[in-house]
Amino acid sequence: VGACYNGVYQYAVREHADEKGLVDWFLTPVVAETYDGYLNHIGSMAITPDMVVRGIDAASADRVPEGCTGGGTGMMCLGYKAGTGSASRVVKGVNGEIYTVAALVQSNFGKDWDLKFGAVPVGRIFMDPEKRKIHEANLQSPELQHQPKETGPQKDGSIIIIIATDAPLNPTQLKRLAKRGATGVARVGGWGSNQSGDIFLAFSTGADIVADQEMSWNPVVDHQPQLVDNSINPVFECVADCVEESIYNSICMAETTIGPEGRTMDAIDLDRLRSTLEKWNCTE
Amino acid sequence: VGACYNGVYQYAVREHADEKGLVDWFLTPVVAETYDGYLNHIGSMAITPDMVVRGIDAASADRVPEGCTGGGTGMMCLGYKAGTGSASRVVKGVNGEIYTVAALVQSNFGKDWDLKFGAVPVGRIFMDPEKRKIHEANLQSPELQHQPKETGPQKDGSIIIIIATDAPLNPTQLKRLAKRGATGVARVGGWGSNQSGDIFLAFSTGADIVADQEMSWNPVVDHQPQLVDNSINPVFECVADCVEESIYNSICMAETTIGPEGRTMDAIDLDRLRSTLEKWNCTE
Amino acid sequence: VGACYNGVYQYAVREHADEKGLVDWFLTPVVAETYDGYLNHIGSMAITPDMVVRGIDAASADRVPEGCTGGGTGMMCLGYKAGTGSASRVVKGVNGEIYTVAALVQSNFGKDWDLKFGAVPVGRIFMDPEKRKIHEANLQSPELQHQPKETGPQKDGSIIIIIATDAPLNPTQLKRLAKRGATGVARVGGWGSNQSGDIFLAFSTGADIVADQEMSWNPVVDHQPQLVDNSINPVFECVADCVEESIYNSICMAETTIGPEGRTMDAIDLDRLRSTLEKWNCTE
Amino acid sequence: VGACYNGVYQYAVREHADEKGLVDWFLTPVVAETYDGYLNHIGSMAITPDMVVRGIDAASADRVPEGCTGGGTGMMCLGYKAGTGSASRVVKGVNGEIYTVAALVQSNFGKDWDLKFGAVPVGRIFMDPEKRKIHEANLQSPELQHQPKETGPQKDGSIIIIIATDAPLNPTQLKRLAKRGATGVARVGGWGSNQSGDIFLAFSTGADIVADQEMSWNPVVDHQPQLVDNSINPVFECVADCVEESIYNSICMAETTIGPEGRTMDAIDLDRLRSTLEKWNCTE
Repeated sequence: VGACYNGVYQYAVREHADEKGLVDWFLTPVVAETYDGYLNHIGSMAITPDMVVRGIDAASADRVPEGCTGGGTGMMCLGYKAGTGSASRVVKGVNGEIYTVAALVQSNFGKDWDLKFGAVPVGRIFMDPEKRKIHEANLQSPELQHQPKETGPQKDGSIIIIIATDAPLNPTQLKRLAKRGATGVARVGGWGSNQSGDIFLAFSTGADIVADQEMSWNPVVDHQPQLVDNSINPVFECVADCVEESIYNSICMAETTIGPEGRTMDAIDLDRLRSTLEKWNCTE
Repeated sequence: VGACYNGVYQYAVREHADEKGLVDWFLTPVVAETYDGYLNHIGSMAITPDMVVRGIDAASADRVPEGCTGGGTGMMCLGYKAGTGSASRVVKGVNGEIYTVAALVQSNFGKDWDLKFGAVPVGRIFMDPEKRKIHEANLQSPELQHQPKETGPQKDGSIIIIIATDAPLNPTQLKRLAKRGATGVARVGGWGSNQSGDIFLAFSTGADIVADQEMSWNPVVDHQPQLVDNSINPVFECVADCVEESIYNSICMAETTIGPEGRTMDAIDLDRLRSTLEKWNCTE
Repeated sequence: VGACYNGVYQYAVREHADEKGLVDWFLTPVVAETYDGYLNHIGSMAITPDMVVRGIDAASADRVPEGCTGGGTGMMCLGYKAGTGSASRVVKGVNGEIYTVAALVQSNFGKDWDLKFGAVPVGRIFMDPEKRKIHEANLQSPELQHQPKETGPQKDGSIIIIIATDAPLNPTQLKRLAKRGATGVARVGGWGSNQSGDIFLAFSTGADIVADQEMSWNPVVDHQPQLVDNSINPVFECVADCVEESIYNSICMAETTIGPEGRTMDAIDLDRLRSTLEKWNCTE
Repeated sequence: VGACYNGVYQYAVREHADEKGLVDWFLTPVVAETYDGYLNHIGSMAITPDMVVRGIDAASADRVPEGCTGGGTGMMCLGYKAGTGSASRVVKGVNGEIYTVAALVQSNFGKDWDLKFGAVPVGRIFMDPEKRKIHEANLQSPELQHQPKETGPQKDGSIIIIIATDAPLNPTQLKRLAKRGATGVARVGGWGSNQSGDIFLAFSTGADIVADQEMSWNPVVDHQPQLVDNSINPVFECVADCVEESIYNSICMAETTIGPEGRTMDAIDLDRLRSTLEKWNCTE
């Protein structure tokens, strides 16, 4: 986090200092992290500010790479190797305008027992049958939680969810969008375990805010577009859908990964996943 | 809300005033409501403080009546008549203590399209086939949300969720419990539509707080039990489960209800629900 | 609080029900209270919804009555009888527009020891010399707070502050305004004692929000005026000034009041206050 | 901020990695900053993680250096050079225990017009008489804020306030402590100007929380000491006092400082301050 914060600052100083190298502005870079100490030797502090500057230089409007890339390299989610995931939706405004809502996730939470794809409890179907029996036996008694001490990776982590949209939304509305990210997490099986530090952030590019407006001691009034609250429901629905799909993508695009000391996290078996989902596709 | 607030006060004055009828304390009753204007003539303001006093007098440790009872009388949820619902779980502490976690909901949100029972998209299966076709066609185009203007009850309401536990939790932990209620809502198909005003409250009976501790100008230290954060996960999981089950109960225990002007809201067909769920019960 | 809440509803139903007396809308009236159990027999629950309806009917654009009026009748602040207070400021916008910022307070907090008028520690100057000596002696020892148990009214109450403006502000900006109310409280000697339940609310009449906008499943965009953040400082400064002046007014306009059991709270001596302030008016 | 964050991590890795240099824990260092671009060439990003490691190594229980030290080096407050300031109070518990409440501030806000020392408007008394006349003339007209565009340093900054205590407080109580910091700021003349980003943090060393408690799926109950809410007032009062005194110290301990391009910020004249305060020391 520290190196990334400084990297953003270095980039900004390189681009926006005056001819003497002086700056009369300040930034508050927003940087977030999830813990990857199982697959990453975090004590080596491998990231440097230079990498971040190169990353910003290389940024483009192309599709975001998904799976084991960037911060997603060391992620594990609901019992499988995971990483970065993304998804988007479009919504048609009342006058025909097209608005896009998109999510980017770095998913790092949950246990296999809870993993669902849409309606299908894939985690339970795929998990080791012995382990599953113990889980199911636990459900029959008041000792619900009295599980045998697990060995191997104890994943209870966290998720970073970034929601972006070009629909014009005010800060209160964006906060409401961010909260709807929790619906997407719940759909795939998350329930916000402890230490999860789930981080949700929503921003809009739909307003035209003057960033370097000079300080004025006389009020200046601006007119900003914003969605009427009573028409925000489709945007909320898109947020839940995008986050759900992003988490699927973060799992399905990841590859089996080996960390320090030979620690290994397997990717999900995509063929088995496809056939399982087809089998469950019941219709009335 | 006003009448209920005053009713709680009237009860307290009746029970705790001194012999002259004077009181030297104050209360902040917590009262919540969801909108039932489709099935209830709300302008008549039918509830009086007396009813609340009688309600408190009649309160018992028996099971909470579910369905069309109390505030649940006018509720509608995910396309069906709903009402009050409740559910609980027990968790075994590390020294064998048994803690109970329970939810009480008054559910009044969502559309049939979104209703799920566990893995099964019951809402879509049960909905009018013509209406379903329109919904599905919408999913194929960027005009996702360009739905035909619906007639009949437009339900986008809200839910009240009360979480109660005898596990000792501090205020920060209780706030975290309340947030996990959203997971239960998401599991049955809610995504927090606008105007929803979802109200989540969690309380614990596990601490022994002296309510009428006299004001002291010298610090007084108390010792309160509280769950260690790293062992709170089973409680979180119970909250999500209890809220999910409570919403099912609020729908399944409700009965078809007729409001003013002959407005009618049908209960869900329990036989069809049972057979549908059995049909979907795929196993690996 | 309950009666007032219902009174607002009764007024709205009377004015806005359809010809059959039915309503298809709902309100969430905002009602607040501070505790006046020393001067008021609160167990009698004397306020009825009818009084509130009459109050709304009688509302006008005239100056707000200050002192012992309405909710202010039983208030005590910083050792003296207090009540309702109000004050306003105007600010000139960059294009010559005039914006008004106003505060309405119901002040019910603090002890005489802390009362200040501007620069002058009036509370200490006016308090009983024996009591003041004990306070000052306490300041010399580590037992700072080891005060003799006080008799008489122990006031540690609360304050309600309503900020109103016609400057166009978004919800985030209004929240920032409300927080600045604390500056005004601090200037007169408040420090937010326990049980204070200080209630701050800010609203703007500067935007033109359509209250009964129909629910739409296609986003509708609106343009709302709002102050540019970098020009909001004069409004913040006005809030602090208005709240400070409102509290002075709430004390100076109040009259000595006798409650149940002959309990009495004296108004401040305005002549002595004036001469004290003049005496302290040092200049460089 | 980035370098400091990484410095804390480097220190922790050096001290707490296992023999292979691996770590199985994570930290969330808390680092804060205020803007010092007037007196510091911030684009040079002069701070490195190593400096922070050396700083932690050199930390001791001695008095905190005040004034132009550490993050305080580039601070300006209420028209004068400022920096780091600190102050503490003790409170006696009901059983004779002694609790300490302390504040550490890095103060960087406000204009000379607003500076007060206790009751005395030092800022107005000390400011340039011509500038003061303009300010006072402005107060007579509705154009209150229509000030001549100021030259020189426009200070509207921010303050970091850290409250520390060994009184046992729960997280809710600590949040209440942090909020009382605003009272101290208001007493010296601050009113929370825009861009201020005031940062308040409170922590207690009074509880004995096991940091590396292993994750348990059976609830574990702990008993923690905590202050009874009805006896917290003296702690609140100490917070306000400590923050007020800390800000005075941050100004009085600072020295005239010259930054890049010869920009200069003068320290306050302590002799004139002393004589002014003595002159104002009116008594009844």
